[in-house]
Amino acid sequence: MRIYEIITKKKRGEALSGEEIRAVITGFASGEIPDYQISALLMAIYFRGMNAEETAALTMAMVDSGERVDLTPIKEKDTYPEKIITVDKHSTGGVGDKTTLAVVPIVAACGVPIAKMSGRGLGHTGGTIDKLEAIPGFRTNLSGAKFMDIVKNIGLCIAGQSANLAPADKGLYALRDVTATVDSIPLIAASIMSKKIAAGADAILLDVKTGSGAFMKNLEDARKLAQTMVEIGNNCGRKTAALITDMSAPLGYAIGNSLELLEVAELLSGKLNESTISKNLLELCVELSANMLVLAEKGSLDECRILAKEAISSGKALQKLAEMVEAQGGDRSYIENSMKLNEKHTYAVEIPSPQNGYITVSDTEGIGLTAMSLGAGRTRPEDKIDHSAGIILNFTSNSYVEKGQTLAYFYTSARLLAVQATEQFLSSLTFSNNPVELPPLIYEHIF
Amino acid sequence: MRIYEIITKKKRGEALSGEEIRAVITGFASGEIPDYQISALLMAIYFRGMNAEETAALTMAMVDSGERVDLTPIKEKDTYPEKIITVDKHSTGGVGDKTTLAVVPIVAACGVPIAKMSGRGLGHTGGTIDKLEAIPGFRTNLSGAKFMDIVKNIGLCIAGQSANLAPADKGLYALRDVTATVDSIPLIAASIMSKKIAAGADAILLDVKTGSGAFMKNLEDARKLAQTMVEIGNNCGRKTAALITDMSAPLGYAIGNSLELLEVAELLSGKLNESTISKNLLELCVELSANMLVLAEKGSLDECRILAKEAISSGKALQKLAEMVEAQGGDRSYIENSMKLNEKHTYAVEIPSPQNGYITVSDTEGIGLTAMSLGAGRTRPEDKIDHSAGIILNFTSNSYVEKGQTLAYFYTSARLLAVQATEQFLSSLTFSNNPVELPPLIYEHIF
Repeated sequence: MRIYEIITKKKRGEALSGEEIRAVITGFASGEIPDYQISALLMAIYFRGMNAEETAALTMAMVDSGERVDLTPIKEKDTYPEKIITVDKHSTGGVGDKTTLAVVPIVAACGVPIAKMSGRGLGHTGGTIDKLEAIPGFRTNLSGAKFMDIVKNIGLCIAGQSANLAPADKGLYALRDVTATVDSIPLIAASIMSKKIAAGADAILLDVKTGSGAFMKNLEDARKLAQTMVEIGNNCGRKTAALITDMSAPLGYAIGNSLELLEVAELLSGKLNESTISKNLLELCVELSANMLVLAEKGSLDECRILAKEAISSGKALQKLAEMVEAQGGDRSYIENSMKLNEKHTYAVEIPSPQNGYITVSDTEGIGLTAMSLGAGRTRPEDKIDHSAGIILNFTSNSYVEKGQTLAYFYTSARLLAVQATEQFLSSLTFSNNPVELPPLIYEHIF
Repeated sequence: MRIYEIITKKKRGEALSGEEIRAVITGFASGEIPDYQISALLMAIYFRGMNAEETAALTMAMVDSGERVDLTPIKEKDTYPEKIITVDKHSTGGVGDKTTLAVVPIVAACGVPIAKMSGRGLGHTGGTIDKLEAIPGFRTNLSGAKFMDIVKNIGLCIAGQSANLAPADKGLYALRDVTATVDSIPLIAASIMSKKIAAGADAILLDVKTGSGAFMKNLEDARKLAQTMVEIGNNCGRKTAALITDMSAPLGYAIGNSLELLEVAELLSGKLNESTISKNLLELCVELSANMLVLAEKGSLDECRILAKEAISSGKALQKLAEMVEAQGGDRSYIENSMKLNEKHTYAVEIPSPQNGYITVSDTEGIGLTAMSLGAGRTRPEDKIDHSAGIILNFTSNSYVEKGQTLAYFYTSARLLAVQATEQFLSSLTFSNNPVELPPLIYEHIF
């Protein structure tokens, strides 16, 4: 009857003890507590919430359900003579969000080793692992030893999420997914943080997105999620900070796996600047990199911004990415000669503007779903994706477009897919008589 | 994903359609919808509630999961020349609540046929079926044909609940019982009413108890439950009324199966009156009988009170009970010579008052649990009970008792049980320097 009492306690709005939360996760992982009791508890948590101690206890119980990555070997004195603080990054996901691919080579180029585990895309959002797999030969399924070896040699590795990290979170997420209990901020926060803490870094930077392309559509929820995660991280002994950033429009010009990697290669080559569609992407990558470098104690925020910009302008970050691609079995020429990333699609279809007006994206999730339907994404985890498929946007928010002007190029393997996707794409846009007010790129910094 | 959307809808506080509720119950009964989704929905219902249309739809979906008793054969003209309205009764349960055993012979003696299905006791509350089984030979597990036969011949039969009535309710209750979702008023109301409606009577009288010995400890919850059930009954085409009655003290002097049957036999013999401990029991039985007779259109409430009292004073109700006992295989001499019901216990232990004072029961559930621990009740449905075990109370609320005066007699099969039970019994009582205000016996009449 222990679990019955735990459900009752939470149902009444009382806080669970760390011991009770641990008993729930242990019993769930071992199968001793049946799913129907766990799902009742999850729904009670949805309604009653969890306080800071509870979310920290839930996070650590999920961490302890599996292995932890031990990053101490990469701190050996022969590689890094000075004190090393390892830093991880997590984005809550969005459309065209390729920041990880740019940020981690920048940070690694500044002397902070990055041992990163990333996930795949689902629904309207993409995943870093999918994007990297657009490069022929690139391997993300690495043994722990190989992963650590590459970090030690190159200072950077991006592998797929190990199934042994926080396995209870995986099971719990699967149950939440079918019981309508995904959208609970303490449960989301504990899920994300359990994987980050198990991944072993000393410090964690969170990019919590808000807007029509994010999971948190409004700022209030995004702020609550960011605060909850920062609190968990700090309560669990990891220096944690968060930026709340805009996802009311796609980031950069590219949406789709190889296309986004192409945009990253251009960014790291210094080809993107204030005058391009990608200015927001560039600014955000510098801010994220600088904040990670601050967490790694490389200087003040202003000093770290300069370090990040220098890593780009010197070509060192691009070089670091190319080295990593090579170390992970990929063809580095796809980074160094990035137009190769835009060669495999079968059809390129121009999408003309249906009218005149100042253009903005009103439904970024709709743009993400358009890319998904072109083949760039998945509706179910087991679906195959077309790495070459996607969208190249040809406008910046609030620019004036004329009827017939090309708004975007669709890349896809079948012309019919492009035809079907056009309506969804156009219905995600708004044309106004005057420019509209745009949200800030970065709302808040929480630490 | 249909069930996912239904959970989401309820989670947001929206009302489910009748079709959605029917899909849930059908899918649950067939096993197509897994328990973990049902339990998440149950918890969402706990928090969000259900409106009148939803509870009626849930009730009817559970009714339709099984068979319905057809009571039209007992209305045949050769038995009852006038129009017959069949009436059922339900009590939400309490300590010493033997009203059904007295009320249904009274009503049957007034010419209203009673085809009653009853349950067994659990925890601190007793069950009518257990009480009747204190009579040697008495059978409650009857075929449908035998059940109808007895009602047609005698005008009264009390059988065990058929497993074929509202089986989905049974499954749902089992799931609620382990997921802490029992205490939801719409779910309680639909559960009770589904069984009553499937049992086939034209009209239903509900006795909703409130106080320390009831499931609804406070009047507000009892009122809400009564209103919800009356609404369901009337929405489902059954004339339904409810009395909210006091359960802040045990009803009558006897707690325990054969002892309660003994008290009923005394009541129907006219031995209980305003001057006895059982005055509340007597008054309540007359009120419940009169209200059932009103539902059966036998006259005004005042007229029906007179009918009920006459059925007692004439000995007709006792005679009806004895006939029913005989028809169901029992030894009717246990009714006609009721002291035989108090012969089987091994030990009778006097419980003296530990102090002087005006005595009241402060924890009626505690008294019920005392009787349970003496052997009169069950902690689990599969437990065996001792029909002869129980408590005879020897005081009325607010009477002045002296230290050493006998408060009660415990009847049990092992002296040690009596010793162990004494502390719980005494701690359920309060001794005051002055009489305290007692609640009314009947709070409200809802119809």
